[in-house]
Amino acid sequence: MYGKYLDNVRKMQPMIHSITNYVTANDVANMLFACGAAPCMADDVNEVKDIVMLSSGLTVNLGTLNKDRFEAMVVAATAAIRSGKPIVFDPVGAGSSESRTAGAKQFLFLSKPTVIRGNLSEIKVLAEIQSSDRPVFRGLTRGVDSPIAGFRDSLQSAVTLAKKTGAITVVTGESDLITDGKTLVCVSNGDPLLKKITGSGCMMSAVITAFISANPDNLLEAVTAAVCAIGICGETARERMTKEDGNATFRNYFIDAMYNLDGDTLDSKAKVSIKGAQDEDK
Amino acid sequence: MYGKYLDNVRKMQPMIHSITNYVTANDVANMLFACGAAPCMADDVNEVKDIVMLSSGLTVNLGTLNKDRFEAMVVAATAAIRSGKPIVFDPVGAGSSESRTAGAKQFLFLSKPTVIRGNLSEIKVLAEIQSSDRPVFRGLTRGVDSPIAGFRDSLQSAVTLAKKTGAITVVTGESDLITDGKTLVCVSNGDPLLKKITGSGCMMSAVITAFISANPDNLLEAVTAAVCAIGICGETARERMTKEDGNATFRNYFIDAMYNLDGDTLDSKAKVSIKGAQDEDK
Amino acid sequence: MYGKYLDNVRKMQPMIHSITNYVTANDVANMLFACGAAPCMADDVNEVKDIVMLSSGLTVNLGTLNKDRFEAMVVAATAAIRSGKPIVFDPVGAGSSESRTAGAKQFLFLSKPTVIRGNLSEIKVLAEIQSSDRPVFRGLTRGVDSPIAGFRDSLQSAVTLAKKTGAITVVTGESDLITDGKTLVCVSNGDPLLKKITGSGCMMSAVITAFISANPDNLLEAVTAAVCAIGICGETARERMTKEDGNATFRNYFIDAMYNLDGDTLDSKAKVSIKGAQDEDK
Repeated sequence: MYGKYLDNVRKMQPMIHSITNYVTANDVANMLFACGAAPCMADDVNEVKDIVMLSSGLTVNLGTLNKDRFEAMVVAATAAIRSGKPIVFDPVGAGSSESRTAGAKQFLFLSKPTVIRGNLSEIKVLAEIQSSDRPVFRGLTRGVDSPIAGFRDSLQSAVTLAKKTGAITVVTGESDLITDGKTLVCVSNGDPLLKKITGSGCMMSAVITAFISANPDNLLEAVTAAVCAIGICGETARERMTKEDGNATFRNYFIDAMYNLDGDTLDSKAKVSIKGAQDEDK
Repeated sequence: MYGKYLDNVRKMQPMIHSITNYVTANDVANMLFACGAAPCMADDVNEVKDIVMLSSGLTVNLGTLNKDRFEAMVVAATAAIRSGKPIVFDPVGAGSSESRTAGAKQFLFLSKPTVIRGNLSEIKVLAEIQSSDRPVFRGLTRGVDSPIAGFRDSLQSAVTLAKKTGAITVVTGESDLITDGKTLVCVSNGDPLLKKITGSGCMMSAVITAFISANPDNLLEAVTAAVCAIGICGETARERMTKEDGNATFRNYFIDAMYNLDGDTLDSKAKVSIKGAQDEDK
Repeated sequence: MYGKYLDNVRKMQPMIHSITNYVTANDVANMLFACGAAPCMADDVNEVKDIVMLSSGLTVNLGTLNKDRFEAMVVAATAAIRSGKPIVFDPVGAGSSESRTAGAKQFLFLSKPTVIRGNLSEIKVLAEIQSSDRPVFRGLTRGVDSPIAGFRDSLQSAVTLAKKTGAITVVTGESDLITDGKTLVCVSNGDPLLKKITGSGCMMSAVITAFISANPDNLLEAVTAAVCAIGICGETARERMTKEDGNATFRNYFIDAMYNLDGDTLDSKAKVSIKGAQDEDK
């Protein structure tokens, strides 16, 4: 069921325009190649409109945000909206600084992302759900809730943000939640090591962009397929590791796993449960 | 014949100043180390003149172009010209946006690159040869010509650009073409996986810079040696791969292969054919 | 003795704010994860103050210096000083350009780094010790002194800079010297391959930040533990290498080694000698 979405990416080879951070740009580009897409990382305000026109989809990632890059993001998003191309928004670190939170909210207001993907802290901030958690940066697990409270929080934040924005919202964590505000999808693929490399979230956002660009007719399933694919690649990477391997080798194996993933394997390994959001919300 | 050019790089250990993009800068730096050179990636307009003075050669790569970086490129190139240091120009994505094409042409007009290296789309745009191809970004193979038409196009574009600019022009593709406008060199080393990682072109441009910096007396052969070396490293990397490896591991093995390449192996594996450009042009 | 400092990093999981260069940012982030810390690489002047507040320590790395990033460094350092958080300063390339040298000295004047870490050329420039060496960029070994003269130079530069600034000063080279101006520590762990990858110095500076953030009560020993850890990881990485491996695989194994390093191993492999600086100074 989900495998065909990957197959379509490999057939279409969509060019994905990623305005992203310099910390993980290399991994994002190689991960896009690995899933069958092609990366383009131009981030200058004077050219992003042209680049969007050549691309099939746009990822906007707030990682190393600054004024110039933000301006380019807004111009690119406007061009994407006008030309009907999907936008995936990754609000890295929203909640960690005033200017970042403001930037994330401003981007949400000015653009119409097709998908928003973040961790619990980030999505909570955008959904404007109060909580006692202090904002935490990706990878930093200290401040994060216990799994169960976290799950409830994720659910509420994701559904709220999806309803507010019309975007399919993905909250990654112990399990990954995906919702369009009505249907709720829970993906339990993945590996804890994904939190011990930089860029696993950025790579997921870029891969989601590739999947929805190549599968415009069923966005929720395409997003689910992308999230499963990333999780499965984490599992595959872990299986290859020897006692001497660490997070650097895991990162390589993670990208390698995507390079070698096929539709059938994606189908057989996907761990997905689907519910109506209403039921869960009670 | 070509091996000695690599040996000279390892002996001289030239410092190569690379003003490049943030997506592949790390790979470029490690590849420069791998071939025996040393990288320096300073890109601020206020210091690039000083850095050029310490360096043996300059690579200018348009990857993540912006106004500040462009200004630094022009200042650095001016310093390189005045001090007689070779410049390698990599017009990444020329043709993909108006501002990028304009920037690439402006750089060509303001500087005198010793070598220009790009893919067919990029070189075509700079040679101002019309064609029905829409511009494509590196790595994106969709829009690219059939191999045979591509070869003729590459030939014409490379010779035209070389004659126009006086630069040795390298067009990379199925085979790599190198010309100074008179002699035509065709290198058929390489592996298709080089198109499935980000930065293989950027790394080649940097390695060319190292080779011509260490071998100023025979530029065409030094460029040829560098192009062969990169292709051979692609072949070596492929040979090491297991069924589970993908493009991330390929990238590592590619750089590893350069680290371990010696002059004799380069000589024995180089696949080069040389012709007068005139003959081929008919 | 040194192992507990690593154990404390793994227990505390400090978030380390790194304002660094785009060439090695990815490696720095993954190395921070590997040692048990969490990275945050925000570099915009409008948010660094907030980010410092969430962090346990700050690394400032001059790699790809420019005006905007420098402004952010100064604001971040000011916030770190006010909130009592340690600062590690890595003056990459000081001496290579006028503006870089000026920037490095200005940063020293404006901030109060807890630790300064550089190679001999860089530390010498900051200590304002004259010598006939021309400034060299990290990784470029050409201009570097003979080991013995280098050791004396390192000693003098480190002690002078430590006394001048009050910062623990680390000079990396054949052996690594660490001094607070009174005690002199010499670490002889490491591997020559650390000079054949980009970012080994940047990673060491970030790891030092993690170690002192988690061990505020004994800074000199915490710095020593971090320097040993990095050197040991170089040794471990080298041991894993096969004949076909090169600097790219070494880089991965280097980070992997940190991921797998435990306190006991650090203790058993650390090669440290300690003397009063006075004795050595004669």
